[in-house]
Amino acid sequence: MLSQQELIQLFQETRKDSEHICSFLETEDYVVQPIVDVSPPKWHLGHTTWFFEEFVLKKYADSHKLFDDNTAYVFNSYYESVGDKVIRTNRGNLSRPTVAWIYDFRKYVTNAMLELLNSQQLDEQALSVVEIGCHHEKQHQELLYTDIKYILGNNPLFPKYNDEFEENPIQDFKREWLMVPEGVYEIGNKSDDFCYDNEKGAHKTFLCDFEVSNKLVTNAEFIEFIEAGGYKDVLLWHAEAWDWVNENNINSPFYWHKIDGKWHQYTLNGLIKLIPDAPVTHISYYEAFAYAQWKGMRLPTEQEWETAQQYFEWGSRWEWTESAYSPYPNYTKPDGALGEYNGKFMVNQKVLRGGSVATSAKHTRHTYRNFFHPQLRWQFTGFRLVK
Amino acid sequence: MLSQQELIQLFQETRKDSEHICSFLETEDYVVQPIVDVSPPKWHLGHTTWFFEEFVLKKYADSHKLFDDNTAYVFNSYYESVGDKVIRTNRGNLSRPTVAWIYDFRKYVTNAMLELLNSQQLDEQALSVVEIGCHHEKQHQELLYTDIKYILGNNPLFPKYNDEFEENPIQDFKREWLMVPEGVYEIGNKSDDFCYDNEKGAHKTFLCDFEVSNKLVTNAEFIEFIEAGGYKDVLLWHAEAWDWVNENNINSPFYWHKIDGKWHQYTLNGLIKLIPDAPVTHISYYEAFAYAQWKGMRLPTEQEWETAQQYFEWGSRWEWTESAYSPYPNYTKPDGALGEYNGKFMVNQKVLRGGSVATSAKHTRHTYRNFFHPQLRWQFTGFRLVK
Amino acid sequence: MLSQQELIQLFQETRKDSEHICSFLETEDYVVQPIVDVSPPKWHLGHTTWFFEEFVLKKYADSHKLFDDNTAYVFNSYYESVGDKVIRTNRGNLSRPTVAWIYDFRKYVTNAMLELLNSQQLDEQALSVVEIGCHHEKQHQELLYTDIKYILGNNPLFPKYNDEFEENPIQDFKREWLMVPEGVYEIGNKSDDFCYDNEKGAHKTFLCDFEVSNKLVTNAEFIEFIEAGGYKDVLLWHAEAWDWVNENNINSPFYWHKIDGKWHQYTLNGLIKLIPDAPVTHISYYEAFAYAQWKGMRLPTEQEWETAQQYFEWGSRWEWTESAYSPYPNYTKPDGALGEYNGKFMVNQKVLRGGSVATSAKHTRHTYRNFFHPQLRWQFTGFRLVK
Amino acid sequence: MLSQQELIQLFQETRKDSEHICSFLETEDYVVQPIVDVSPPKWHLGHTTWFFEEFVLKKYADSHKLFDDNTAYVFNSYYESVGDKVIRTNRGNLSRPTVAWIYDFRKYVTNAMLELLNSQQLDEQALSVVEIGCHHEKQHQELLYTDIKYILGNNPLFPKYNDEFEENPIQDFKREWLMVPEGVYEIGNKSDDFCYDNEKGAHKTFLCDFEVSNKLVTNAEFIEFIEAGGYKDVLLWHAEAWDWVNENNINSPFYWHKIDGKWHQYTLNGLIKLIPDAPVTHISYYEAFAYAQWKGMRLPTEQEWETAQQYFEWGSRWEWTESAYSPYPNYTKPDGALGEYNGKFMVNQKVLRGGSVATSAKHTRHTYRNFFHPQLRWQFTGFRLVK
Repeated sequence: MLSQQELIQLFQETRKDSEHICSFLETEDYVVQPIVDVSPPKWHLGHTTWFFEEFVLKKYADSHKLFDDNTAYVFNSYYESVGDKVIRTNRGNLSRPTVAWIYDFRKYVTNAMLELLNSQQLDEQALSVVEIGCHHEKQHQELLYTDIKYILGNNPLFPKYNDEFEENPIQDFKREWLMVPEGVYEIGNKSDDFCYDNEKGAHKTFLCDFEVSNKLVTNAEFIEFIEAGGYKDVLLWHAEAWDWVNENNINSPFYWHKIDGKWHQYTLNGLIKLIPDAPVTHISYYEAFAYAQWKGMRLPTEQEWETAQQYFEWGSRWEWTESAYSPYPNYTKPDGALGEYNGKFMVNQKVLRGGSVATSAKHTRHTYRNFFHPQLRWQFTGFRLVK
Repeated sequence: MLSQQELIQLFQETRKDSEHICSFLETEDYVVQPIVDVSPPKWHLGHTTWFFEEFVLKKYADSHKLFDDNTAYVFNSYYESVGDKVIRTNRGNLSRPTVAWIYDFRKYVTNAMLELLNSQQLDEQALSVVEIGCHHEKQHQELLYTDIKYILGNNPLFPKYNDEFEENPIQDFKREWLMVPEGVYEIGNKSDDFCYDNEKGAHKTFLCDFEVSNKLVTNAEFIEFIEAGGYKDVLLWHAEAWDWVNENNINSPFYWHKIDGKWHQYTLNGLIKLIPDAPVTHISYYEAFAYAQWKGMRLPTEQEWETAQQYFEWGSRWEWTESAYSPYPNYTKPDGALGEYNGKFMVNQKVLRGGSVATSAKHTRHTYRNFFHPQLRWQFTGFRLVK
Repeated sequence: MLSQQELIQLFQETRKDSEHICSFLETEDYVVQPIVDVSPPKWHLGHTTWFFEEFVLKKYADSHKLFDDNTAYVFNSYYESVGDKVIRTNRGNLSRPTVAWIYDFRKYVTNAMLELLNSQQLDEQALSVVEIGCHHEKQHQELLYTDIKYILGNNPLFPKYNDEFEENPIQDFKREWLMVPEGVYEIGNKSDDFCYDNEKGAHKTFLCDFEVSNKLVTNAEFIEFIEAGGYKDVLLWHAEAWDWVNENNINSPFYWHKIDGKWHQYTLNGLIKLIPDAPVTHISYYEAFAYAQWKGMRLPTEQEWETAQQYFEWGSRWEWTESAYSPYPNYTKPDGALGEYNGKFMVNQKVLRGGSVATSAKHTRHTYRNFFHPQLRWQFTGFRLVK
Repeated sequence: MLSQQELIQLFQETRKDSEHICSFLETEDYVVQPIVDVSPPKWHLGHTTWFFEEFVLKKYADSHKLFDDNTAYVFNSYYESVGDKVIRTNRGNLSRPTVAWIYDFRKYVTNAMLELLNSQQLDEQALSVVEIGCHHEKQHQELLYTDIKYILGNNPLFPKYNDEFEENPIQDFKREWLMVPEGVYEIGNKSDDFCYDNEKGAHKTFLCDFEVSNKLVTNAEFIEFIEAGGYKDVLLWHAEAWDWVNENNINSPFYWHKIDGKWHQYTLNGLIKLIPDAPVTHISYYEAFAYAQWKGMRLPTEQEWETAQQYFEWGSRWEWTESAYSPYPNYTKPDGALGEYNGKFMVNQKVLRGGSVATSAKHTRHTYRNFFHPQLRWQFTGFRLVK
């Protein structure tokens, strides 16, 4: 558990980071929502701010005056049952509040928070909510990167975001297969540091022998799959995946473009030639599974991944696992608004492990359980094989 | 036909008017597209500019250098067959080009046009395209008003556009029924002034006796229909209208809100109390028809409207007629890109006559044939009865 | 107006004809509903019977006992507002009541009707309902043919219906263009014989000069359009038609199949080689319009058709006209359940005139106004040109 | 492994059983397909027959002449990639081949099979395909029951199937909680008797302590959940489940009808009063999960179920588990058409264990892994709780 002083620093850094990410945008880029999964950047900035006003200031800062009475309605995401859906698909239709308004809102709430944190000692529960709020904002920072990439990368003009963001680190080492022997292992988070509820409930699990690759699958390797007709071989795909491939004419990872016979990739630095040795990214679970089938191998389960992760490098791609997202055996649902929705997404989603080039510093760890629907590709996803 | 000098003035006024309309917007308001029928204001500004560059400057200004090679792709609307649909629903997903870029584009093209118009005498065909371009932009000015109203009026914060726009002129005179006797009448446009192709082909038509109201149906009258259960009486509605009413839970004109038991209306001046004597507006053909059924009357045909219009005031509401939009008997399709799509919309649309509070000065006339699908409501539509 | 004796004969013939049409079916053919526009044959047999029980026997046969209390629910079509839609798309999901039950129901009602008609003199209103009931059943006879054709013709086994039905009469005469001079003409039905409400209200209309073909467009002529790329030329199509063509991959009339490079047509006699000189059929209004555009001609309006029809042969194809379906000027909606829905379909539909090889004897006439949505093709539709 | 003699008996019984199930139907009942998940009974009869002709007779009966060359096209289900979907949704549109034709087809294939089985000793692989074919047909027997129930139970006339089928066995014993201690257990099928590939690959698994109910949840217990507002409490439902509940207005198990304030249930014996002590059935995984949330308990995993099943009675309801369907650790995909699709459904489905009143004799076992999408309700599904 962080001290209040450490928390002040975490809070300040986190708030600054979000604004730094957006500092490369034009006003117009803050507004649009090309698909339902992508939220407008201004919404992320407002929503993470609303969180602190709603769950900290309203409760613990006695004299706090709300910045605006309509804020909650616009920036709430899923904490109310009915309004939720309407708002989510409508986020990109709202030109107001403006970007300037949102920055004012941020400044107002950041200042009020700092005043609160600097003026009195908060109890443990309050500090815990502040900490959650910082991690919540860090999660949205990753979404800011991926949503900005979607917005710019699906514009016919392919504008670049900036020149700095490095999304294709090379794995310049040899592929090796790490052997993990059969046995009972323990997984889950037992540390006192921050983690999400779904990581808790450390428990034993039995694993059979397996071998796991020390490297992620690369672009060059994925091209072999494409050239071998992988996208056209029904036997490699789940039934629902095959429908998805055909209805959407999927024939390469997302953001790939074949121009004059050469594969290119849209990146946050603009359109570039595909880098063969970079780990493949922006692929669905379906594509990861099909590739593994084609190789006669498979994806790891999340238990295997967590057990073996100490022996390989990870963190540049969220790694699809074979595991469907479901609660750990000892999981107990916490009370209250912050915890109550944890079980809500535990169906039809696959667990991803690790972290990506877009994950905020200090935000992931080896027990972190990310999850997405198997067809989604706008995150920096990748995979490694098990045999 | 206007002289080149008159045309320069029309052109300058028209360009200025579009920018004046948008001068009340925030940058964010230029970007969004809440429904497919509504285009982002920045798209209207770009598209009307593209028109002059594509059809005038490229053809008649020898040394003209395109402002940007990607413009056409983004601002073309329906003049290419396949790209059309993709772009239309995507207009609101494009944060680039920016608003600033579009104003630069406008300035560049306006200047190039004025240079062309001031430096050499254009032939009749060229002048005719310039004139069409001005009217084309005036049409988009009306869409700017209605699309801005949609964007702001469907925002939960109900921001106002400005304080000036007057959308509810009162008809403070008594209702009278004008008798038009049976006979052969001529309709269509025979003037030398500008008009659209679909108005030409003046021809005779036979009309039976009819009586037409000198007044549009008012808000107060429409409330009677609502209170009599008009929206719930299947016998008043077309089969397709009844589905539409029920699937969309339609129970009042668009932009009406019942707040604390009182009807309000969102207007470009913000949310106001409904004005009983103002002509009802933002209603579909279906609702106009149902109201007429309920009164035991009917809507005029466009031939009746055109014949009788000299005896009543019109111009505050586009008036739904009973006529389906189809070509006039002597209509011949003109050649070339500008004319070729005239027949394209002549199915499943109803003719509207008159003009509205949002129609640009000098843009409408008694032979003008507007047309929309019968369920659309975001224009300033209204109706008058015939018996 | 028919005498009661004549009506008895009409009734008996009509009832027999429906059963004769179905005598060529297997039990299974009575049950299915491949698309919403097509009703299961057993539904037609039941619905036409329900009509007589509901509107005649319940009202005029004092001691009539309903065959079954649930009949109305299943066989009502659109005479109740809410239940309607649910039932229409569900008709093909109902295995009960069985076909045998429906024939028992028919026999019971036919006998009760004959007993009523033979035992007492009915008043004029009652006789008029009986006459409408016969014409209603004749309308459903045409639907029986076209629905059976759809059911069998979309089965991969292409079963034939019978060997007798003649659907491709040749027009073995030369094409000529009949000149109709400008003037005021009268259209509409003024006879005392049976006609539908929508034909009444005879009235004057002004027609400009036109020339109309004495022949329908033939299969051979339509092949020229296909081979000239007609289905791929966006300029020939309405905006909505172009979407329809592309979303449904339309590239020939319905029921055409190219087998080993030769055009074939599914007919009620099974799959045959296309007959070049037969009038083209099973085409949408959109296709008729596109063909006319391609020829530089147009379709007649319904007023033109009715005025000119005395000079050409008609009756093998329902002929698409350019006219949108709307009420005649003097039309007044009759009261009561039988009449109340007449205005209900008067939007987004095109008028067809004439009749087809599937139209029952004595069922059509030169004032008959049929109407369908412009994309529908399962009726025996065709067209002739005007210039 | 069964001997050839035992297999002949299994085959004969199986073929007879399918026909016995259908002996209570009218011809019309064989034809319809009210939803995509339900196939017409005649399709089941044909498809199971096609299986024997395609995979046994074509391969092992040298002189076998196909009954009809078009059979495969109509009765294949998913063994071809592209044709599949088109056919599945179309099954209910095909009136031909007729029911009589299908019974002829069955007789022909049954006879050819018996001739083959009685005339020569088949090798092990051939016998194995025959055995699979029998179990395949037994699977379709369960679908026959559930599909027939859907067809009759969604008919407004609620016809009964027969008087014999017993679908609501009472559990007349006390609820007890069976304690299973933490430890490594083995699951999977190691027997030599027939089982499906997905059960093989027996392996160890680690289970934490748990207690499982000896009884399924009953109708009376489920009514408590309804009356406590369970269907209206968003906190009990997965995000996707909540959408499903609201879009489909779900407020009770499938086939339940509240008539005059009393719960009734459509059963294969017709509409009856709900039996309080019978195990609840026709519920989705979502409803089972919501009920468990409401009780503060959970569903078992499939590993827990298999380990504990020896201590409780099972077989009247397919029991939803918490486990997503995925391959066992040692699973290896078999070659060839029969095996190749095993992995195809292993995403977005939940495992069900046990068996139901509609499961054929000898068809299920304690290692059997059934699986369905979490929203499906037309099977005889139920659940038991774990704490």
